[in-house]
Order: sequence, then structure tokens, then C-alpha cells
Amino acid sequence: MKKIGVAILGLGVVGGGTYQILTEHREFYQRTQDVDIVVESVLELNRERALSLGVPEDKIASNIAEIVSDPDVNIVVEVIGGIDAAREFVLAALNAGKTVVTSNKELFCKYSHELERAAKRNNAGLYFEASCVGGVPIIRTLLDGVQANVISSMMGIINGTTNYILSKMTDEGSSYEDCLKEAQRLGYAEANPTADVEGFDAAYKLSILSSLAFHTKVPFSKVFREGITGVSKEDIADGKTMGYVLKLLAIGKQSPEGIEVRVHPTFVRKDHPLAAVNDSFNAVYLTGDSVGDVMLYGRGAGALPTGSAIVSDIIYAATHSENKYSTFKNTANADKDVKFISDFKSAYYMRLTVEDRAGILAKIATIFSKNGISIVEMVQKPARADGKVPLVLVTHETKELAVRSAVAKIDALEEIAHVDTVLRVVT
Amino acid sequence: MKKIGVAILGLGVVGGGTYQILTEHREFYQRTQDVDIVVESVLELNRERALSLGVPEDKIASNIAEIVSDPDVNIVVEVIGGIDAAREFVLAALNAGKTVVTSNKELFCKYSHELERAAKRNNAGLYFEASCVGGVPIIRTLLDGVQANVISSMMGIINGTTNYILSKMTDEGSSYEDCLKEAQRLGYAEANPTADVEGFDAAYKLSILSSLAFHTKVPFSKVFREGITGVSKEDIADGKTMGYVLKLLAIGKQSPEGIEVRVHPTFVRKDHPLAAVNDSFNAVYLTGDSVGDVMLYGRGAGALPTGSAIVSDIIYAATHSENKYSTFKNTANADKDVKFISDFKSAYYMRLTVEDRAGILAKIATIFSKNGISIVEMVQKPARADGKVPLVLVTHETKELAVRSAVAKIDALEEIAHVDTVLRVVT
Repeated sequence: MKKIGVAILGLGVVGGGTYQILTEHREFYQRTQDVDIVVESVLELNRERALSLGVPEDKIASNIAEIVSDPDVNIVVEVIGGIDAAREFVLAALNAGKTVVTSNKELFCKYSHELERAAKRNNAGLYFEASCVGGVPIIRTLLDGVQANVISSMMGIINGTTNYILSKMTDEGSSYEDCLKEAQRLGYAEANPTADVEGFDAAYKLSILSSLAFHTKVPFSKVFREGITGVSKEDIADGKTMGYVLKLLAIGKQSPEGIEVRVHPTFVRKDHPLAAVNDSFNAVYLTGDSVGDVMLYGRGAGALPTGSAIVSDIIYAATHSENKYSTFKNTANADKDVKFISDFKSAYYMRLTVEDRAGILAKIATIFSKNGISIVEMVQKPARADGKVPLVLVTHETKELAVRSAVAKIDALEEIAHVDTVLRVVT
Repeated sequence: MKKIGVAILGLGVVGGGTYQILTEHREFYQRTQDVDIVVESVLELNRERALSLGVPEDKIASNIAEIVSDPDVNIVVEVIGGIDAAREFVLAALNAGKTVVTSNKELFCKYSHELERAAKRNNAGLYFEASCVGGVPIIRTLLDGVQANVISSMMGIINGTTNYILSKMTDEGSSYEDCLKEAQRLGYAEANPTADVEGFDAAYKLSILSSLAFHTKVPFSKVFREGITGVSKEDIADGKTMGYVLKLLAIGKQSPEGIEVRVHPTFVRKDHPLAAVNDSFNAVYLTGDSVGDVMLYGRGAGALPTGSAIVSDIIYAATHSENKYSTFKNTANADKDVKFISDFKSAYYMRLTVEDRAGILAKIATIFSKNGISIVEMVQKPARADGKVPLVLVTHETKELAVRSAVAKIDALEEIAHVDTVLRVVT
């Protein structure tokens, strides 16, 4: 039976989960995969943490050099996170000919070219299923499951923190601030929640997933990004009344005109399969030219779900000798030609506050009309105490820049009308 | 660039879809997969059909011998269906060292041992993604995506015909017969619908999927099977009122006690992700010990979705030289030990008709109690014109044989009480 030695860099949440899965399933993988996977070494500055997980003293390495020079280590698992040390260690492992399995979305998103070149040069494997959507095998699906298709669209709920917050706001009618606090209390959000709530985490993942789906490198810098910090409970409630659920969607589209990639809070029709993806669950909804619509749903984070993806990569690496680093085929050439679309099309939800007198609606309607925006549905709400009237509306599909131009013109009416909210809508 | 010659046996719906995908995407696969896939030959008795799909005259083979002796054919796609010719042709191809890709669930379910032995003996590949759940990459996911997990449970809506009929009965309150006719009119059901509506199709697929999930051969004969022909619109309506949606579920469970596999109409709580899988869509909901719950959703049938799965297998075969036929590892040994559970546990929905007089409910309650059955919820409906009273109830989880025994005892009360419906419930 083939023996595979693994080193784990970092025994945080995911590293700990990976260690647990590998040690508890060793016999299971011998039996079902015909491979003996052994943790040969861990790199963890917090020795107590390593010992408390049951790592034998003599398997705790002192530095990366020990690991990359160890002939018993075939696969190095990088679960440190961040860039500096992670990048250095991954390159050291690849340059020593070790296969690398990483969960590091930021590293892979920003440095995939460098890492893949190093992997190729050293004939080493480079796997990153755990970098996107935790235990959901979305990367394997893109590479080996729907690869017969030209993918035209990908829409994902790929950040558990924001989905938890938005689900709670929707169910309980609470404010963003209260739900964020609750998420932090439960460990779903970090003390500094910026990476999640401002959409950076989802944008890293979208960059990776759309690069795979569209067969070209989609740089992080091309991802339009808007977080959920400005979302109000009023908009969630009004959207609900109109049949929509608010989600932070990561959207990638490919057409002959180019590629568009964007992360923003989005109203989804309540009968869309993505609308039912609640709490910290994640999902990716793909459309391929042959397969049609496919959705993958599951846990996007957590020690064991993400550990499952890492161990899946380890087994894959141990049982497949090909397709080691061929993730962005012909990237060097493709990059030159690909166009990215910033003036994308969408339907829009808008909330306006207007003065309650004759002629104002006509003014607004004229601005919309001049920008080619037509309205599907509009609700005028009762006048507020200050005499102003809230208007809530959903438009037909139109261009992003046309909406921005209309909003600027309406806001220029100053006292008369103001646009409080613009949210994109998937119908 | 590697060149792969393909022969397609049978140009029916799926064969036609496969031919279309391969010919339209040849350049796309050259660019994205670094492989040139060429249809070298087709076997189709209906020459007109082949010509109408654009197959050049000189690529229409006269017999299987021509194909298996053709050195330019590397991969044989079997999409004939049924057993006799399909089995003979697949064996001939494998024995000639050709890789086989098949969509034939009945063949693979019943003859996987024979086919895998032939594949192994000849070092030929054997792939069958298209045999289960159309374009949804469930087999790839089980083999390469969640293989790090001990799978405890799998629940699937894996037959589009029955899901279409049940969705329509649920939405419109129509009868089974009317919805079957509509499904036949739209081409979702065949003129002889037995294989679908009696659950054979789902049982073949469940046998294959649970064999993969549980790492042992799960024979078709072990699958408990009940179709949807006895489902009434009254039960669907009453279940809906109680918060359930009726689906034909294929359920596989694995525990230290053994394996249970069953296909039957099942009430699913309306907030379960499977409850939202409507019309001809399919889904499989898996639970793994590390990954937790994962669901895959998509089109379970159709020329292009199933063709997508076939071409995915062709590309996989062309780009991976390992894991060709290792689908039921160590099956020969495992088969001896595995236990199958026929007295499975479930919650139950029951509809009874009872006489409207004192003491009857007590009699029924006593029968339940003696069989260890306890009730979660019961609704007594207004007396009917004939004076009888319908009772609808849902039980806690209990054993199948206990329910059957209770039903027999209640029915033995004859005039006094009768059990009209027993349906299993997933809570």
C-alpha cells in the first residue's frame, strides 16, 4: 500500500480539524482508498495547542526547513492563512518538490501564477479545494464535473458570516449592528469583521472560482465589491414584501462581450434555490451550456467541513498523478485578450424619499426614462412624520452606469428627492 | 495534443445530445482541456436519424465488431439502454481494451461486477457518471469530492418523472392519473411509465450511489421499493397542511448495524432543502462525518444534461490515467460481511377511517401503544357523508415492522377502523 506522509503548517481551527480527520480515519482510508496517510510533522508555534490535539512531541517541527527537507513528507498542508509566512512556506515546499494543499484563498487569489509556476517547475502538486466554500466540492466540480460545459453564469453565497447576518436580519427584523454582534458572540464573525462584511473574502473566492469556470485568470482587482454594512432592516422588510430575500451574492458571468465579476448584497426572488440557503450555509449556482442549472450546497467554513476539503485534496493528490497544477490552462495567453465588463446589467431595487407634492413623481420618472430605466413595480408608502414620502421600486434589467447617472440626477434635486438605497436584484 | 477517438453506440436522446456536445465543443476542449476529442464512429440502426444529426455517412458503423477493432477508437460511449445488446457491446469494447462510458443505470446496477472485472483484466476505463442524476456530478463528488468522509446518510430525489408528477399534484391539487397524463404529453413520462412510477429507475440509481457512498456492493435486490401510483391528492393536501411536501425519496443509510436502502414516497418537512426541489429537477442530500450536510441539485435527465455527464467522463478518461475502474474497492471481501437492515426506522404519516363512536380512538391508541408507536400530531377531520371520520396523524420515529403490525391489527377491526394510507416521513 502506498504511504503518504503529510505535514500540517498551522494548527488553528482548520489545521486542528485536518489533524483530527487524518488521525481518526487512517484505517478507513487504507481500506477505501488503498493509501496509508500519516501525519509526519506539524509546524505550530503554540506547542501547548499541538500537544492538546494529541500530536506526539517528536512530530512538532521547529521550523519550515525541517519539514521541507524531510524525505518522509510528501504533502504539505498550508492552513496558516495570510500572505507573508504562508507564501514563503508554500514556495519552500513546492521548491523542495512537495505537493501543497492549501485553504488560503487570499494567497491563492493573489499569487496563483507564482505558486503554479513553482509547482510546474518542480513537478509538484498544488491543490486548493479548501480555499473556496469549505467542504462543498466546488473546485473539483468545476475541474472534473462540469468541465464539458461553457459556463455562462455562476452565482454564489460563499461567505457564511454575511449569510448568517442577513438571514438573521430577515428572520428577526433586527438591525445589522445587532446581528453582527450576535454573529461575533457565536464565533461566526471575527472581532474585526471587515474581510467578511465588506466582501473581501467573497471576492477572493470569486476570483478563484471564476478563473476556473471561465478558463482565464480573473484578478481580484477586477471584482466589483460592495459589502453589507449599509444594509438596513427597512430595505430587507420592504424587499420581503415584494417577494425578495437579501443575500450577499458573488456573481460571475461570461459572454462573448467579456467577463463580469461582482460581489454585492442582492435581492433574490424567494422561489430561487439560492433564497433558501440560510444561516451559515453556502451554495454556488452554476449555469452551463449543456448541463443547465446546477447548485452545490453545504457548509462553507468550520474545522471539519474545511478539513474535509483538505483531506479530499490529500487523497486526490495521493491517488492521481496527473492534473497537478493545470488549473488556469493557457493563462499567459488568455490574459491578454480577455475583456472585463464594469458596466454590467442588472435589475435594481431602489428606495427614495421624496417631497409629498405634485410633479415630483413626474420629475423622477423623466430622469429614469432619459436613462433608459423602466420600472417593474413601485410602492408608495404613507407619508412619514416629517411629511416626506418613501418610494420603493424595482426596475427592469438595465445598465449599472445608467442607474448611477439617474441616482446622481435625482440626488441633485436636493430637498425634493433623495435616493436612500440602491440594491441589485436577481430575478 | 492528445487525440481521443470516440464511438457512440446508439443515437437516441442522450446519444444525440452527446454527439452534439462533442462536435460543437471540439475547439473548446482543445483549448481548455488540451485534448482533441473526435467522434470517429457511431452505431445506429436508424441511418436517417444519424444523418439528420449531421453524422457523416462514412462514420456510421455497420456493427460493433467494426468499432471495437478500430484502432482510432479509444472510448466507446454506450447509450443504447436496456441489458442484452448493451451488455454484449460493453463487454466487447472492454475486452478490446477500449474505455467505456455508459449512461445505463440498469446495466451498471445489475452487472457492475462483471463489467469491472472485464475492465480491470483489460486495463480499460469504465465510467458511469451519466447513469445517475443526469448532469449532476454526484458520482464524481462521491469518488473525488467527499471521499474523506464516512457517509452516514444519502437522500435523493433522483427520478425526474415522479418529481414532476408529485410537484404538479402538490401545486395544483390534481390526481395522480391526471398528472401522469400531463407528464406523458410533455415527454417527461414514457407511454409505459412503470420503470419510473414504480421506483425501479430510482432503485437502480440508489443501488449504484449507495455502493459508492458505503464502499460495498449494494445489490438492487436489497432496495426496498414502493412507487407513487397509490398516492392520493387528499394525502398530499393533508400533509401540506401539516407542513410537509411529498417526494419520491431514495434513501441510503449506513451505521454500525448495517446498511438500509429504500425508495418510497416520503413526506419531507417544507423547510428541508429537498422540499424546494421541484418539477423535473433532481437533488441528492448527503451527510458525511466531517463535511456535514451537502446537497447537489440539477437536471437529472435530458439530452444535454446527461450528455454533459458523458462528455465529462470522456474528458476525465482522457486526462486521468488512474482510477479507471476502482469504484467498488475490495467489494469481493466486503460483500460477505455487510448486513442489510429491512426493519428500518422512520417517522410515519397515516390516514385512518374510523367509525364515529365512543371507545374507538382508545382501541387504536392501545394498538399503537402496544407496538411502541407514539404520535406527534393528530388531526380528526369532520365526519363524512357516510358517518365515518378520517383521522390523519404523524408518528415519532419507530420501526417499520411495528407499524406494519399495528396496521394489520387496526385493519382487523374491520368495520370499526381502516388504515387507508401509510407514508414515511423525514423530519
